[in-house]
Amino acid sequence: MKSQVLKIVKIGSSILSDRAVLQGFLKDFSSLTGLKVLVHGGGQHATELAEQLNVKVRMVDGRRITCEDTLEIITMSYAGRINKDIVAQLQGMDCNAMGFTGADGNLIEAIKRPPSPIDFGFVGDVIAVNRVLLNQLLGLEITPVFCALTHDSNGTLLNTNADTIASELALNLASSYKTELYYCFDQPGVMESLDDPDSLISEIDPESFEKMKKKKQVSDGMIPKLDNCMHALKHNVDKIFIGNHNLLKPEFETFTTIHKG
Amino acid sequence: MKSQVLKIVKIGSSILSDRAVLQGFLKDFSSLTGLKVLVHGGGQHATELAEQLNVKVRMVDGRRITCEDTLEIITMSYAGRINKDIVAQLQGMDCNAMGFTGADGNLIEAIKRPPSPIDFGFVGDVIAVNRVLLNQLLGLEITPVFCALTHDSNGTLLNTNADTIASELALNLASSYKTELYYCFDQPGVMESLDDPDSLISEIDPESFEKMKKKKQVSDGMIPKLDNCMHALKHNVDKIFIGNHNLLKPEFETFTTIHKG
Repeated sequence: MKSQVLKIVKIGSSILSDRAVLQGFLKDFSSLTGLKVLVHGGGQHATELAEQLNVKVRMVDGRRITCEDTLEIITMSYAGRINKDIVAQLQGMDCNAMGFTGADGNLIEAIKRPPSPIDFGFVGDVIAVNRVLLNQLLGLEITPVFCALTHDSNGTLLNTNADTIASELALNLASSYKTELYYCFDQPGVMESLDDPDSLISEIDPESFEKMKKKKQVSDGMIPKLDNCMHALKHNVDKIFIGNHNLLKPEFETFTTIHKG
Repeated sequence: MKSQVLKIVKIGSSILSDRAVLQGFLKDFSSLTGLKVLVHGGGQHATELAEQLNVKVRMVDGRRITCEDTLEIITMSYAGRINKDIVAQLQGMDCNAMGFTGADGNLIEAIKRPPSPIDFGFVGDVIAVNRVLLNQLLGLEITPVFCALTHDSNGTLLNTNADTIASELALNLASSYKTELYYCFDQPGVMESLDDPDSLISEIDPESFEKMKKKKQVSDGMIPKLDNCMHALKHNVDKIFIGNHNLLKPEFETFTTIHKG
């Protein structure tokens, strides 16, 4: 049944903001064999654009408060500038990419987050992934490229965390494919101490994660990310890899693998 | 063979720039039965955004000179802000829209226009439409929404006139469907005199068009548009309709029909 592997790869601002790094990364991504999906954020570009357009950037707990002007800016940035640049580049690398928000084909439906305790504005939490259409698109050998926008099915786009989009896609498609999640960011993986590059933790499973949390061997910022990973494993995602922009290189070995143990 | 009708509808800035008009128009579009494609420009929004970002807008013969900064602006405007807003609105009207540039799925390939006699910059002329994939997407009951961007298949997005995208889609799909083209703009149709609303020409065929040109019964600005229509008819597009934002309303009768005669 689940013979095919599906790789879902998420990239963040540290890769997107350096043209040469992005190009190298997309080269590695386009070389991956089999089915694949790319998910990207773009917070840094959106913040720069907001500054140029004199729209105030407001963050609470590292999350962007998304007023109407901010929604317009991230739509221009994520779905326009960044998504289409990636799609065009991948096409130039013989990868048949197609760029999406969650509104396109109703691929990812979300619900606007309630305004209490914090009113994040146009921010959405995923409630449904259109598995049927995604399977059909993958069947046409299309490589979906998702930006961090979903919709409420009622005409409104919603800002949704790209990490969450990647894990929601992975766990919703885990019934059809052997699903692997790749998180590429600005660190070599999960670290015991951010100051010490030698403190990379190469393997984590649910049991060791609980121990690490108790012993405070993992930074606070990393805990929600890892909680998210544990949730994905519980929902039949096969494996999760966390590393820097070299993560997809075939010979590269410096990263963290998260598995069921 | 060609039993199915495919309606390709192009809208311009006059519809896009008025939120209520756009919403009404999309309601009419979503109510169209059968297969349909929407194509939009967005020059007015792009010009406003360029002004806000202090990027000079340069036009020659009504065409935008597309430098690198301008390409970035129109990508944010056309593919981001305008395209995704339309897609989300259509989804709210139960129309399964999916937004595209020509780079997505390699749907529309273009070649950068030679820099002589005028260097238009990143402007592309269509060389190929991916009929196979478009047929597959239409078969999945997806409604494609194209913005006025194509790509060179080598990593670069290109600015391409939305009227041309609509007619290229229509004539490339004319072998698979009975294809109808709808141009919706700020006038009731083709006029003998722009000042006189009663001078609407309700029907045009290739023969009458030649006569009109000789008698100078049609404004200079309209001639390239109509030449384009004649080209589409010659390539088996079935019928072309030109009118204002009410063109898709079932009971509406004030527009121009262009047919083979």
